[in-house]
Amino acid sequence: MSLTVVGSIAFDAVKTPFGERERMLGGAAVHFSLAASFFTDVRPVGPVGDDFGDEEFAVLERRGVHTEDVERVPGGQSFFWRGRYEYDLNVAHTEDTQLGVFGDFEPKLSTAAQEADTLFLANIQPDLQRQVRAQCGSARFSALDSMNLWIDTAKESLLAAIAEVDCVIVNDAEVRQLTGESNLARAARAVMAHGPRAVVAKQGEYGAALFAGDSFFALPGYPLEDVRDPTGAGDSFAGGFLGYLDSHEGELDEAALRRAMGYGTVLASFNVEAFGTERVASLSRDEIDTRFHDLHAMTQFESLPIP
Amino acid sequence: MSLTVVGSIAFDAVKTPFGERERMLGGAAVHFSLAASFFTDVRPVGPVGDDFGDEEFAVLERRGVHTEDVERVPGGQSFFWRGRYEYDLNVAHTEDTQLGVFGDFEPKLSTAAQEADTLFLANIQPDLQRQVRAQCGSARFSALDSMNLWIDTAKESLLAAIAEVDCVIVNDAEVRQLTGESNLARAARAVMAHGPRAVVAKQGEYGAALFAGDSFFALPGYPLEDVRDPTGAGDSFAGGFLGYLDSHEGELDEAALRRAMGYGTVLASFNVEAFGTERVASLSRDEIDTRFHDLHAMTQFESLPIP
Repeated sequence: MSLTVVGSIAFDAVKTPFGERERMLGGAAVHFSLAASFFTDVRPVGPVGDDFGDEEFAVLERRGVHTEDVERVPGGQSFFWRGRYEYDLNVAHTEDTQLGVFGDFEPKLSTAAQEADTLFLANIQPDLQRQVRAQCGSARFSALDSMNLWIDTAKESLLAAIAEVDCVIVNDAEVRQLTGESNLARAARAVMAHGPRAVVAKQGEYGAALFAGDSFFALPGYPLEDVRDPTGAGDSFAGGFLGYLDSHEGELDEAALRRAMGYGTVLASFNVEAFGTERVASLSRDEIDTRFHDLHAMTQFESLPIP
Repeated sequence: MSLTVVGSIAFDAVKTPFGERERMLGGAAVHFSLAASFFTDVRPVGPVGDDFGDEEFAVLERRGVHTEDVERVPGGQSFFWRGRYEYDLNVAHTEDTQLGVFGDFEPKLSTAAQEADTLFLANIQPDLQRQVRAQCGSARFSALDSMNLWIDTAKESLLAAIAEVDCVIVNDAEVRQLTGESNLARAARAVMAHGPRAVVAKQGEYGAALFAGDSFFALPGYPLEDVRDPTGAGDSFAGGFLGYLDSHEGELDEAALRRAMGYGTVLASFNVEAFGTERVASLSRDEIDTRFHDLHAMTQFESLPIP
């Protein structure tokens, strides 16, 4: 099985109350790919500039990520994001965004990338998401992320992109904003009415909720006493979620989606324990499975016979 | 088994985007008692004024709540709260609070109330909580709620009250504020260091988390497509939680606390479906158990053998 992801490949400057980094490997497709690499073959698609060198490729390649579809644009600069988090890590401030080579990005996928069984359209302009979706006709399962910017500026394109995927994975505030419906359950149903069979509402430290057809499932965030940098948590979640689904040989039924929620939660939790890709890049599958079992134990309770 | 609760018995004026009520039965001890009444014998302790009449007593008594410890203060007015919720129901604004007879309240418990197996000290001045705690020496399990006002104005008293109970049930923001620790897991451990064996962090629509010793458990809020009035949700949660624990004949171990979290979640969810006490006052045990089973089904996922 194999998984293609399109999205930003970037450098981040991040400051949190627990430290800072002036320039570290980041971007949605990077966080996603590293998380998914524990489950399956991953191919990130996206442009980088001359500043993206062997050291950055090596981080991906050491995890077995296939980098043939990372497009080097001579003379260009990679996407750059600078952000700062408050003492309450749920509150982030973007201080600078430089699109660089992403400004003229036209996705051209290799045959291997086009033949992926699973596709993730990370948060990029919705028309680009649709171009990539159109090139991956044989995907068994596809999902997209988005953000308030595209809801505000390209809503029609975004709704068209949503209609073409199986699953939407966004923050809960974006589910509400997209539909103009403040009740999350109603908002999720409204998104599914556009086509997707599932909606995952990410809720930061509170975890994530899965709406699939008429069913509902939710997991808390994995409790951590040390959270250092939330950057990339949502993409690591998506990487664990779709990486597991891609590796799953049976039907992608409700049970599989629920386990995928567990792996997404686990990968997101590792991601926030250190800056950037530091923790996930050096993770082992054993650590993932141990935490998955811990998470399972933290969410179980005995039902009772109806008296 | 029996359960004593001390707290406000009140009239509320509430406006939400889905309707309003100019004067309805409310107060922490009322919401708590109605929720707990499905599990055990409940005795609310608190003062009311001349405005609290047969109609209000009847709402409690129809649910089998023992009202002997509701103290009628001749010439007084009952506690009154006026509040308004935004379209995002998580945002509440208090527009008026009139303490009335609560201003001079000195709790005097009947022998029956003193002999309770379970005790809940709802959100009142912490010295009053301690007075009641001292009168209930034989309680098997005791818990308290509090709020930012007491953390700001009576922190030492509140910490002394916390040291005397088995469980603290507060909003997650209050766990943080009480300890000056932004990480919830660390903050909960810091609260337990004062004495309690468990901390329940209520998280509004996101559900609730239970910290007990080194363990962690969390449940999402029950997903509802129609939420009309959040007033009393936290006290209904506490009523379901402690009502179940009081009715539980075995040890109050982790498994029992987790099931109690389930019943708390279910009672809170019914509470918010209608204004004030309207929904819980007319609820049946069958409806509660059905929703408990639904909640159980919504939170289960299969673990996997470690590969």
